[in-house]
Parts: sequence; C-alpha cells; structure tokens
Amino acid sequence: MSWEDKVRRVVPYVPGEQPKKRNVIKLNTNEFPYPPSPVLKEALKNTDQESYRLYPDPYGEPLRSAIGECYKVSPERVFVGVGSDDVLSMAFLTFFNSEKPVLFADITYSFYDVWADVYRIPYERIPLNEDYHMVKEDYLRENGGIVIANPNAPTGISEASDPDFFESIVKGNPDSVVIIDEAYVDFSDSSMLCLTEKYDNVLIVQTFSKSRAFAGMRIGFAIGNEKLIKYMNDVKFSVNSYTMSRAAIEYGIAVLKDKDYFEETVKKLINSRERIKKELKELDFEFFDSKANFIFATHKKLKAEYIFKELKKQDIYVRFFNKARIDNYLRITIGRDEDMDRLIIALKDIISKG
Amino acid sequence: MSWEDKVRRVVPYVPGEQPKKRNVIKLNTNEFPYPPSPVLKEALKNTDQESYRLYPDPYGEPLRSAIGECYKVSPERVFVGVGSDDVLSMAFLTFFNSEKPVLFADITYSFYDVWADVYRIPYERIPLNEDYHMVKEDYLRENGGIVIANPNAPTGISEASDPDFFESIVKGNPDSVVIIDEAYVDFSDSSMLCLTEKYDNVLIVQTFSKSRAFAGMRIGFAIGNEKLIKYMNDVKFSVNSYTMSRAAIEYGIAVLKDKDYFEETVKKLINSRERIKKELKELDFEFFDSKANFIFATHKKLKAEYIFKELKKQDIYVRFFNKARIDNYLRITIGRDEDMDRLIIALKDIISKG
Repeated sequence: MSWEDKVRRVVPYVPGEQPKKRNVIKLNTNEFPYPPSPVLKEALKNTDQESYRLYPDPYGEPLRSAIGECYKVSPERVFVGVGSDDVLSMAFLTFFNSEKPVLFADITYSFYDVWADVYRIPYERIPLNEDYHMVKEDYLRENGGIVIANPNAPTGISEASDPDFFESIVKGNPDSVVIIDEAYVDFSDSSMLCLTEKYDNVLIVQTFSKSRAFAGMRIGFAIGNEKLIKYMNDVKFSVNSYTMSRAAIEYGIAVLKDKDYFEETVKKLINSRERIKKELKELDFEFFDSKANFIFATHKKLKAEYIFKELKKQDIYVRFFNKARIDNYLRITIGRDEDMDRLIIALKDIISKG
Repeated sequence: MSWEDKVRRVVPYVPGEQPKKRNVIKLNTNEFPYPPSPVLKEALKNTDQESYRLYPDPYGEPLRSAIGECYKVSPERVFVGVGSDDVLSMAFLTFFNSEKPVLFADITYSFYDVWADVYRIPYERIPLNEDYHMVKEDYLRENGGIVIANPNAPTGISEASDPDFFESIVKGNPDSVVIIDEAYVDFSDSSMLCLTEKYDNVLIVQTFSKSRAFAGMRIGFAIGNEKLIKYMNDVKFSVNSYTMSRAAIEYGIAVLKDKDYFEETVKKLINSRERIKKELKELDFEFFDSKANFIFATHKKLKAEYIFKELKKQDIYVRFFNKARIDNYLRITIGRDEDMDRLIIALKDIISKG
C-alpha cells in the first residue's frame, strides 16, 4: 500500500503545443490572429493596483453585468469562469449528477470525455453520420444530460442550418440539461441564446478566447435560466469562491465594450476563411463548410500526418489528431492574411514534392 | 422527473462579505492591509497586451519557475493555481480518492468539508483538544488523507512549537498524502517546506492572497515531491488546462521579486498584531496566541455576536462564525494601524455601553 493507491489517475487532455521559439506561425490552437481591442491599453493604464490587495467579487461582478448588458439578459442569468473550459467543467459537475449516460458526439471537443472521466460521469459517444453531422433523433432518448459543440470542433460544422435542430433536442429533454458549447459561434450566425428565454434546461457557453482575442486572460461565460445559474454558482462557490481576478474583470469589460473592433476583426477573419477555402480547394484539399475560425481539411493524395510534420519543419504549426475517423485531417486555424499566404506557399511546396 | 433531479446539490461555502460601500474598515476576510508591491506599477506599464490573444502557458510558466527560485526548489516541484483554494481543491480531487475518511480538525478552514462534500470524499472531523490544539496521535491511524492548516484558521494557532509534530504525522502516514495548508505561514516562523525534501507524501500549500497583498489576482501554489506535482497537474489538465492568466503570471512574478517590500510589510503587520494583542487584553478579551494576520478573540462579558453587530453599525466588519465551539469568538483581521486604532475606540465604546 502507498499513497499512490489513493491518487485519482487520469489520462489528461493534451493541449495544443505552445512553442517557445519566436517566428512560428501558430495555427494549432484556434487563437484569434489579431490583438485584443486597443482600448485595453487605456484599461491597463487606469488599473487600480492598490485594490488588488482585496479579493475580487465572487460572482465576477461587474463583468457579469457587462456580459448581461451585451447579450440583453439580467446578470442573474450569467455565470463567468476562467475560460469556457472552467465554465463547462463546472456545468458538468453541477448538472450531470446521475447514473444515466451523458450524450455527446463521437467527434467533438475532446475535453468532454476527459471531464466525464475525472468526475466519474457515465457517458456515451454518439457517432456522427457519414457526413459528420449529428442526427437529432439520437439525442431523443433517456440520458443524464447532453452536450453539443456548435459549430462543432474540430469539423467546424454548424447544425443550425436545420432551424428546428436545437429546439427539438432541448424540448424533447425536459429531464436533462442540454449544454450548447458556442466557443466558435461568433464566426457563424447560429447562436441559440434565444432558447434560454423559452426553456429552463438549456445552457449556452461562450468564451473570450476566440473572437475576442483574449485567450491569455481566461474568460468564459454561460447564459441560462436564473435557476440553472444559481445551481452552478452554488457548486462553483464550493470549489473556489474567487475565480475571476480583478484584472480579468476590469480588462474583460474593456474588451467587451469595444463592439466596433470586435465586429470588424471577426468580419476580417471570416473573409480570410472563405478565401482560404478556395485556395485549399485548388490544392486538392477537401473539407467541411466551416463556420468557425479554423478549417478541418484532408488532402486527396497526401496523408495528414505527413503534411503536419512537413509544415512543422517550416515552423508552421497546425493541429493533427491521431484519432479514429479524423486521423487523416488537419485542423488549420485561420491566421492573419500574411500567415495564410505563407501557409499556402508551404503547402504548394509540400504537395509538389510529395 | 425533472432536470433538477440530476443536479449536484451542495451547501456552498459562504465567503466573507465584500461590502460595496466605501469607508468600511474591512477586517473580515484576512486580506493584507497594505497595497501590493509598488513594482506592480512598472509591470503594468510593461504589459505585452498583444500577447493576450494567445493562451498562457498551461503550467503557469514562468511564474512557476520564479516560485521555485524563491523557495529554492526545481520548477517541477511547484504547482500554481487560481488562489490556494484552487490548489487545495485540486489536491483534494487528486489525492483523496479512496473509500477511507480524510482527517482534519473540527475547527479549521471551513472549506475542507465543502470540498469533501462536492467531490464525495468521506471525511472525519477530529476534535481539537480543550486548548484548541491538535493531538498528533489522532492522526496516526488509517485514513484516506490528512489536511492541516498551520497556522490554523480561525484560531491562528501554530503547532510548530512541537518540533516533531508535523514530521511524526507525515512519517507515520506513508500511505496517505498529508496536505499542510500554510496560507498564513509568513506571519509565523513555522513553514514545513523542509519536509518536502525528505518525504514524498507531503504537500505544502501557500498563497499570494495574504502576505503578498495580492488576493485580487488569485495566485496560490503548492510545493511537493515531483511525483505529487505531476499527479496534480494531470488532474488539473483534465479540468482546465489554462488556469493562470498572462496577467497573473506577469504580475505575480513582479510582486514575488520585491522581497524587501514583502519582508518590511509583513514585519509591520506582525508588530501591529502584537500591539493589538496587548490592547485587546486590556479590554478584557481572551484569545489564542495568533501566528497569523488575524486574532480570534472572545470577550469575558459581551457576546461575540453582539459585538460583531455593533461593530458593523459603525462600518467595521469583522468575521463571526455561527458554529459549535467558536460561536462566541470574533476573527479580527489585522489592518493598518489607523484602522486598528478606530477598532479599539469602537470596542471601548461598545464595552462601556454593553
């Protein structure tokens, strides 16, 4: 017997590599390519550093109210956390507390099964159909909860083209909480926020890490019914009362308020994405119609792993998942135009030699 | 049946009140009364705000290395988290994964049973003796783990006056992890960091929220054997890979490096504490010999709850716990000298009327 027998053993999530060296073109963790809003500079200058000796507000106020204002919901319907991973992990711990399996797609954000494992939540992975779409009927049966990433990762596919898709799942599952993970939703036009007005069992989760260029500050949030949010806060207060630093609260508000910059840079990114789709097609890549800030692509001739390694040699990092059904795909984050130009040149070179 | 049947119900920890109004003398949450090191100003000015679009390092580097350097241990022996509550909660989740009860004192940091409840960890509260001290023999029997706050909260008592106390518990429990929560240790002279060199089953947890005046930035850390730290990081990466914001990492390093300011302000606080002990004694208070930045005191005549309410009327907030064995005590955080002077005047007034 040893203390090691009492340790919770897990297979940890492996985040995308954060290269130490400079001049890497980093298209592997879906970060936003443009800097955070320039208003941040002013916010930094105005920091009330003396107040940092005091604990922050446990609800993340006044950031919570600012998010509520932005999305036109009361603050009591907003939960804030240390990135959407913190928010989702708290939602799993709070809402998926039964013996029945939680349902999610076989190909989706790879943290869902990790959280289920660490919190001992039973789960079932539902295969996407052959077009990598979800089949809504699969989610209309007994379960312990449902989690859906939309747009999905790493495919970039949005199910919102079927206008009834989400509502039928939420409505059909009054006995479960349905979490819709909208980390990439600002690059699409498919938020299901409206469902939170009508149903008390749906939770929308979003993040500042992608479209708001603020991965470094760790801010995520959820919007739902007041009752849902209260349950989440009860659990959060039982884990760590003060998660949102004063810096995250102050700077988060500043960045959130610069709507013009947000809209302008998101539009720019979407334009780049659509341009790159055309260029990849010309290079014999096939891919899903991504509504996110990445493209999940496979090449007609060359193996994904080979391209991944060749790109890395040229200091261009993309993401490769060595997993069933997706091990011949690359997930390529949309970067600045000049980075994407360098990517295309590198790909042409690799393909011509391959 | 409703989705609410699948919700994890908890009795959440209630943090000390964070008053919205100004001019309150806040002696209720053990915050440090002096501002963070003035070097913070320079760090804020030098912030590389453009980098905030990128995820931070998942290990909290380079803050982790800076802590290692400060405490003369390798970075691989350091774990950083969002305040010591995050660190402790991760340690509970990681190390207390058995059917045997985790042991801690009946009067100690009130989060321990909350974490045990939320993570479904069995536990047993061991009564302190009549002098409110721990009895080491109580911790030398089969258990699922041990957690000890030293100096203890809310009593302020340190067990380090018995030089063998901690080593005998650590040595006597090779099959369990022993966590020593040293949130207040800088106000004493009793860190057990040295035990981590000799034993692989002891974890020391400390925080920037008290002696480093940085509660608002949320930084805590643990030091232990490399193997312990690896297990903790595995679990942490399975909950939230990126917990430490770029701001917390940058500003944390700045504050940590200003050793002169740290030593000077801690010394000042200890002087205030010893002065206040004398003044409270003259006012007929009785208290333990606190080695922390607070005094846990009871009055010979007046009820603690009465004094608590009367002080609040005068905008002086202290902490009152409505719990067995301690419901006639007040926990008074040591503030700036001028705040303590006002407290003493207010107490004199209350006592003269009471």
